Amino acid sequence: MDKLHRVVIVGGTHGNEMTGIYLARKFAQHHDLIQRSGFSTQVLLGNPKAIAARVRYIDQDLNRSFEYERLQNSQLASYEDLRAKQIDQMIGPSSNTPVDVIVDLHSTTANMGLTLMIDQEDRFSLQLADHIQRIHTDVNVYSTVNSGRSRDSLRSLAKFGFCVEVGPVAQGVLNAELFVKTETLVCTILDYLEQYNHNKISSLHGSFILHRYLGTIDYPKDGAGELQAMIHPQLQGKDYEPLRPGNPMFLKFSGETIPYSGDSTIYPVFINEAAYCEKGIAMCLMQKAQVSY
Amino acid sequence: MDKLHRVVIVGGTHGNEMTGIYLARKFAQHHDLIQRSGFSTQVLLGNPKAIAARVRYIDQDLNRSFEYERLQNSQLASYEDLRAKQIDQMIGPSSNTPVDVIVDLHSTTANMGLTLMIDQEDRFSLQLADHIQRIHTDVNVYSTVNSGRSRDSLRSLAKFGFCVEVGPVAQGVLNAELFVKTETLVCTILDYLEQYNHNKISSLHGSFILHRYLGTIDYPKDGAGELQAMIHPQLQGKDYEPLRPGNPMFLKFSGETIPYSGDSTIYPVFINEAAYCEKGIAMCLMQKAQVSY
Repeated sequence: MDKLHRVVIVGGTHGNEMTGIYLARKFAQHHDLIQRSGFSTQVLLGNPKAIAARVRYIDQDLNRSFEYERLQNSQLASYEDLRAKQIDQMIGPSSNTPVDVIVDLHSTTANMGLTLMIDQEDRFSLQLADHIQRIHTDVNVYSTVNSGRSRDSLRSLAKFGFCVEVGPVAQGVLNAELFVKTETLVCTILDYLEQYNHNKISSLHGSFILHRYLGTIDYPKDGAGELQAMIHPQLQGKDYEPLRPGNPMFLKFSGETIPYSGDSTIYPVFINEAAYCEKGIAMCLMQKAQVSY
Repeated sequence: MDKLHRVVIVGGTHGNEMTGIYLARKFAQHHDLIQRSGFSTQVLLGNPKAIAARVRYIDQDLNRSFEYERLQNSQLASYEDLRAKQIDQMIGPSSNTPVDVIVDLHSTTANMGLTLMIDQEDRFSLQLADHIQRIHTDVNVYSTVNSGRSRDSLRSLAKFGFCVEVGPVAQGVLNAELFVKTETLVCTILDYLEQYNHNKISSLHGSFILHRYLGTIDYPKDGAGELQAMIHPQLQGKDYEPLRPGNPMFLKFSGETIPYSGDSTIYPVFINEAAYCEKGIAMCLMQKAQVSY
């Protein structure tokens, strides 16, 4: 594989996720923190108008606006459609110097700690994830290969897109501990890319635990679409923990428990994520797998 | 004092505080839960347009829109000004049957657990608060007598206004455990009012621990108003715990700690509340006092 030339760190793809926004601002002011000898590192604020308004987005989710067809469609003129096209022209395949790696910084109201998302399970991405997890043992690796995020996300503009999710933190809130942890993680990723460019990465094969996206589950709703239940207290905050058939999943407003009715153990994440309610997602369901590279 | 005739339970004064919204909906559907023999109980959704949009407010904070002068000023025509006037005419001093008690349900991103706010330190309010705290020993009582909330809040429309705050919960999120706790607390308040009307409240005097509002502190900012620091990790989540002179208060993005520079121990609450950032409030400062009635 070729060397990496251009890396972009993105914050504020969602305008109310403060960790990434303030980290991006810090990195922009103190470029020495992200500068490495082997490649150029650029900082980008994804959605400036949403950041100013402290909302997730203005017209539509920017991080679902990068499908090739959307970028080519001149009819689409929402704020986020225009911004997506602009970012594509700055750093994406439509730019003169397309970017090799994007690290997009997000936060979640779910109790997910630090998550590194990879969108493809190629050797480069898997080896990077394994390396990160060896250094930051509390980081979970989340593969989106089944979810389509490699087609519509901002990070899909790069040859290799990575997303860092950190939580739990409320929208509009900066949590200092999670801020510092995310900063350290980003620096480890950059160090890894530097080592990669200098051929210092072992050519040995390895294997590690990966969480692979399976699908989503919505909250129980009535015929009119009205919410009928909440995440069960026994499931709330239990991201990445096993959910077994029969375990409590939802609590109806009446007090009745709705158990998980699947027939195999799954690992839910993004449990009760504030921004996913409008998408009809109460949680994402993951499979835990040992992957080799 | 006269008997109580009309009680109103309000949810959704802020449209992204889901606990109150869904509790109000539950109470409206199951009126038996809030019905008592000695008075009528009504349920009100404070800000329907903000609830539909899942935002705190449309034009301005509804819960700061009830000052007498604002309600009388026919020039003011923002959505919340109009809604405030409407609510005043429904249940406030301008209605034919003004309400005796309002219990307004709120939530916070701060780690405050359950808080009962009282706006006046008269014997009735103090005795109710003491009673609640004896039954729900984890409830903190917060007196706003120094903060002006008895003049501008929705609950100020009633002879006696109480606010229930519950957290930590992100905006837009329903937390089942906090939902159930809040429901139980509201029912205890209604039971108390019922006992009061039936002269079953002891005439003895009592005393208990109260947190009294002193003022607020903003985040450190530069000349341009840009945030320079976050709540220090050692203070984050420590609502109602003592903050002593010299204790870490903020963490600058550079990593430098800013200590609390006051000269007496205070008790911060609403630490890092998402909605207060725009108000220039990093936390509210409280004094802990033993009050007698």
